[in-house]
Amino acid sequence: MTGDNSEFSVIDRLFKPLAGLTAEARGLIDDVAVLGARDGYDLVVTTDAMVEGVHFLSTDPLDLVARKLLRVNISDLVAKGADPYGYQLLTAWPKGMAYEGKEIFAAGLRVDQDEFDFDLFGGDTVSTDGPLLLAITAFGHAPTGRTLSRAGARVGDRVLVGGYIGDAHLGLRVLRGEFDDLSDAHKAHLIRAYRLPQPRDDMADTVLENAHASMDISDGLIADATHLAKASAVRIVIDLDRVPTSDAARAAMVLGADAVDLVTGGDDYQMLCTASAAGAKVLIAAGFVEVGRCEAGEGVDLISNGQVLELEDRGWVHG
Amino acid sequence: MTGDNSEFSVIDRLFKPLAGLTAEARGLIDDVAVLGARDGYDLVVTTDAMVEGVHFLSTDPLDLVARKLLRVNISDLVAKGADPYGYQLLTAWPKGMAYEGKEIFAAGLRVDQDEFDFDLFGGDTVSTDGPLLLAITAFGHAPTGRTLSRAGARVGDRVLVGGYIGDAHLGLRVLRGEFDDLSDAHKAHLIRAYRLPQPRDDMADTVLENAHASMDISDGLIADATHLAKASAVRIVIDLDRVPTSDAARAAMVLGADAVDLVTGGDDYQMLCTASAAGAKVLIAAGFVEVGRCEAGEGVDLISNGQVLELEDRGWVHG
Repeated sequence: MTGDNSEFSVIDRLFKPLAGLTAEARGLIDDVAVLGARDGYDLVVTTDAMVEGVHFLSTDPLDLVARKLLRVNISDLVAKGADPYGYQLLTAWPKGMAYEGKEIFAAGLRVDQDEFDFDLFGGDTVSTDGPLLLAITAFGHAPTGRTLSRAGARVGDRVLVGGYIGDAHLGLRVLRGEFDDLSDAHKAHLIRAYRLPQPRDDMADTVLENAHASMDISDGLIADATHLAKASAVRIVIDLDRVPTSDAARAAMVLGADAVDLVTGGDDYQMLCTASAAGAKVLIAAGFVEVGRCEAGEGVDLISNGQVLELEDRGWVHG
Repeated sequence: MTGDNSEFSVIDRLFKPLAGLTAEARGLIDDVAVLGARDGYDLVVTTDAMVEGVHFLSTDPLDLVARKLLRVNISDLVAKGADPYGYQLLTAWPKGMAYEGKEIFAAGLRVDQDEFDFDLFGGDTVSTDGPLLLAITAFGHAPTGRTLSRAGARVGDRVLVGGYIGDAHLGLRVLRGEFDDLSDAHKAHLIRAYRLPQPRDDMADTVLENAHASMDISDGLIADATHLAKASAVRIVIDLDRVPTSDAARAAMVLGADAVDLVTGGDDYQMLCTASAAGAKVLIAAGFVEVGRCEAGEGVDLISNGQVLELEDRGWVHG
């Protein structure tokens, strides 16, 4: 059924069901959301936006875009040891965007709200002459004073990642026509990593208990390790040979992908953390992989076969 | 001095000084903000976006756009009886936008952060092929369980507004070339009302103590009274002859502006509330003006000289 495409109709028919009966959302009929203080907990807040053509492709299905939007924000929360709680949603629809597209977008939100027990509290809806822009301000709870930061790494810490690195970067390149000789299964794996990151909300408590510093990887492992090293005033040495890669990524490397691309690409949304030797043991038992060490100094060195690699461009620019 | 226009430079040089030393912002070097629970208070949250060409004009000075962005959100908070606390900022800069414009925008944020004791906690910065888009998710505190809503109006309540109605609507029309025969002082007054709303944060406590229902007027007095009437399941009768208007607005009416335009225009960002007779007395002493009553029934009637006026279009569409 085709809906009335007005702002009020979209809110009434697509967003109010997402707010449900939570006290916080007030049924979306009010101008504000109201979040009660949770005794013994801080509210952890993050904002992430996605722009069509920059952070996702025009051809990406809108339900997956919605789910990625939620997951990118949930990824930030869980990397800090916070329990996902709910979100404010901003949608800037291109003028003339059909109701059906908005409906598909809302259906994607529903899937991952249920998956992550994450509720819509409020937001704003506008229209624009520009590309589709979506943003979330996400809330989580962490025990008072214990929210992890980038700044807690210590000399001697182990450096760990929460899962495969580089799949999302390769998935974007597959969508752009590269690595055509990959198997369909490998292509599907890489594309899915790009479109649908997997935040490990089940690991938030373990990270909170065992990590000294933690963040999620969005700009690429090397770039984000550089941010963490700077905030913590340590040097980080990453061993490229220990960075975990999927079967699909290794198949792409056989077809010419460079291992350095995997650690300088972006969009991984895996956790990056540091911990003592004892903390690292617990994290490794939970599925983390040790990829390096914190030393005295500054910056990041990438080594392979014991040799420091020269990186011309350690960052990653969207698009 | 011309700055490096990269995302990191804009954050470092323009936004970090706005976050200052608040514990919440973590110096903007982390991925999240952390808001401690305030015992006895709820966190009140609102999100409002502004798009160039829709919510502001390309010719509006960017420092005033920044201040309007903050004030539109603060207006929502204080109308609910909440004390403004801080905000998450989303900026989607058009590709190629000069650093100088961003600097002017940040300078405007600084002015009103100081004016309203309102701090930057975090956010996100992206670029877009579209027009400039700015959004804030704003936080305030209200005593636990007492945040005002649209839904508390009772039959017999007085309906009150917090200040002049229609100035902002007329200011937009002046900017578009209408009412050229107005005096420069009147033009300046109306343009200023459009560009720089005046949220009455000094009235938040009085409203909290005395109002049954409250919201701010963004879509026009009639449209927002209709929202309030619907949420409260009452009928609201507004007496056009009692709606407060500025000298400048009355001068514009002499030049052809219709009184009905003032109550169906938008962008007032004045408070609209309902209260008992006793509550209304306190509110009137604080500067509110009584403009109508709540009756049994539904919808909004606008009367003048005791006659109900027919309104073809009670809403207001941006742009």
